[in-house]
Amino acid sequence: MIVAGDQQLLKQINRMALVRQLCSQPGMSRAALAETVGLTKSTISLLVRELLDEGWLIEEEPGITGALGRRATPLQLDGSRLALLGADLGISGARVVATNLLGEVLAERELPYADPQDSTACLALTAGGLVQLADDAALAEHSVLGIGIGVHGVVDDASGMLHIAPHLGWRNVDVAAQLRDSFVGSALDGLPLFIQNEANVAALAELEFSGQSGTDPLIYLSIGYGVGAGIIVNGRLLTGLSGFAGEVGHTILQQNGPACSCGRRGCADALIGLQAMMDDAYGTHHTSTPEQLERLFMQAEAGDTAATQAVTAAGRNLGVLLNNLWAAFDPMAIVIGGGALRLGERFVAPGRQVLDDYANAARLPAPAIRTPHFGPNSIAIGGAAMARHYLMRPALTTLPA
Amino acid sequence: MIVAGDQQLLKQINRMALVRQLCSQPGMSRAALAETVGLTKSTISLLVRELLDEGWLIEEEPGITGALGRRATPLQLDGSRLALLGADLGISGARVVATNLLGEVLAERELPYADPQDSTACLALTAGGLVQLADDAALAEHSVLGIGIGVHGVVDDASGMLHIAPHLGWRNVDVAAQLRDSFVGSALDGLPLFIQNEANVAALAELEFSGQSGTDPLIYLSIGYGVGAGIIVNGRLLTGLSGFAGEVGHTILQQNGPACSCGRRGCADALIGLQAMMDDAYGTHHTSTPEQLERLFMQAEAGDTAATQAVTAAGRNLGVLLNNLWAAFDPMAIVIGGGALRLGERFVAPGRQVLDDYANAARLPAPAIRTPHFGPNSIAIGGAAMARHYLMRPALTTLPA
Repeated sequence: MIVAGDQQLLKQINRMALVRQLCSQPGMSRAALAETVGLTKSTISLLVRELLDEGWLIEEEPGITGALGRRATPLQLDGSRLALLGADLGISGARVVATNLLGEVLAERELPYADPQDSTACLALTAGGLVQLADDAALAEHSVLGIGIGVHGVVDDASGMLHIAPHLGWRNVDVAAQLRDSFVGSALDGLPLFIQNEANVAALAELEFSGQSGTDPLIYLSIGYGVGAGIIVNGRLLTGLSGFAGEVGHTILQQNGPACSCGRRGCADALIGLQAMMDDAYGTHHTSTPEQLERLFMQAEAGDTAATQAVTAAGRNLGVLLNNLWAAFDPMAIVIGGGALRLGERFVAPGRQVLDDYANAARLPAPAIRTPHFGPNSIAIGGAAMARHYLMRPALTTLPA
Repeated sequence: MIVAGDQQLLKQINRMALVRQLCSQPGMSRAALAETVGLTKSTISLLVRELLDEGWLIEEEPGITGALGRRATPLQLDGSRLALLGADLGISGARVVATNLLGEVLAERELPYADPQDSTACLALTAGGLVQLADDAALAEHSVLGIGIGVHGVVDDASGMLHIAPHLGWRNVDVAAQLRDSFVGSALDGLPLFIQNEANVAALAELEFSGQSGTDPLIYLSIGYGVGAGIIVNGRLLTGLSGFAGEVGHTILQQNGPACSCGRRGCADALIGLQAMMDDAYGTHHTSTPEQLERLFMQAEAGDTAATQAVTAAGRNLGVLLNNLWAAFDPMAIVIGGGALRLGERFVAPGRQVLDDYANAARLPAPAIRTPHFGPNSIAIGGAAMARHYLMRPALTTLPA
């Protein structure tokens, strides 16, 4: 029934099903894999042989089981031969990392922008940093499989075009094309390249590399100057009709509330983000600068009244947003990340309190809330995670959703 | 590479991929199917032969194309041999339908409850109605493939247990077990049975039978006494960790707003649902009865001030909820259904206006909003759609999400 033309795709799907299984349960034997994924032992043996040869998998020493007969050989992802690159195209600089297949950082660099408004120069700097990473001594033994980029703005992931990055002042920048041009002649020339919004990329880091791949639905709520989310449903990123899904910063939490940069009033973005806190503490007539932000962090730390009130109010509104995400998605976990995390419990505790109050009122257990596994590296490592994510999920045109 | 043990599953997946393709593009030839789904022509021919024999597909007369040579035979789903059953376990009665594979109604019955509080009697009545439908003359030529039930409450779809149906007063009712028991010895004994929340089922009717299967994400917003949603993402129902995803009636639209039945304040449910409108128009001290609801519909129709204000206020809050669903999901369409639709434009127009105002403020095109394809039959037909949905998506244990 299955003929030659179909076999290539099916083989690729089955190969990557084995790799994904070993991501969530490292140390499985060929026999255990056959049982779990429902393929025959001979098929498994052939696929595992290929994956060992190509650097995806490695055999461990069999443990001593006390049982008679040949011991099963545990398999796991090989961290020593293949690499993934990721970049965080940040607000004041880029951060680039190389990881192995397990998400362990092999090398990283910080690259401050000379002029954040100059998108061409920022992208050239980032591309150069990625090429240098690939040439790094730490990576000499590794082959790079792919590259993923997280961008703090609205991006069309299909084309790699950045529509708008409000806090960088970039509009309609063809990030993919500029990076590809910069890679010509380097070791990265022609490699698979993936581009996504920063919250989406950070969500993929949690999905792929946190050791908790069964957390689904998973929401990564990114709170920096503004508010956005990366949402994983059924093991895939929720992107929506035009790639804008997860823009939960523009859900309305307070009708006729403060004006939002989007033109609406009372959006989560205008009530919870760092910009909202600065507007609240210092008035909207002040320009927002890195110095102003530093002032907010220092004054909140020092217990200044205006700063503390602004942070607490934002935290309480965070609790409303957490409730709303809980009701809509019934997530297995909500991860709170982004620059606002530097405010720590001053910001998060009021949010958790409001959420708990709602949960108690409804006599339901509140959803799990946690911080990111990868701290300030979440987005750069998320780039590497995105590359692994898409490489391990080949296009399934003949198969059901 | 592909061995005997794998073939059975792969064959089932490929068979149903063909059926799904013909659902969205009826009239394709074997050659066009081979091209589109990426299988060889010989594989397609074998699978199509089986599906013709079993009653899933039928061949049409080839059209006159003017081209030389043998004309391609158009294929489509066969509406004449297989049937699906659906039930809407409503508030005052049940509605049962039989449809063919295309979702066309073959027979239907309304079954008023003697005592809505008596869950055992209501379920026995519904089961009896389904058995009678299957024996109906109109169905004599059809084989029933499966049965789907929509319940106005919170249901665990994996077990078929209803946790709570607030407007029926039912708690912890094992709907699946009671129906299965009633089917023993009838034509429905042992057939696949699926149970879901009513908004989820209505969403599946839109996905499967509306002729718009590419509408994704799709949100079916159900507004009756309360508010809930069925959400389709990547061709699948979003169910969440515990099956509660889509409970958007308990997202908060107005902090410290009116008390909600869930214990929170300011939920969409307490601002938009028919119960909220009655509380607003007549005060919360009045009991809500079918007569009270009829009074609301009549007075809104007649232009009574209190009723009109309540309906308009609910409609404006509907607009806020529509905005929030738009931002979170970037849906291809939001379908507004449920009993509140009887209020017509008095209710929906203010909602659309608020949504349009937000869209204009943000300089974005508003998402598509429409009414259900199946009117008051949405949930019963949705039951049949759910049966087709799950039968056409065999478990994919060896395949990626």
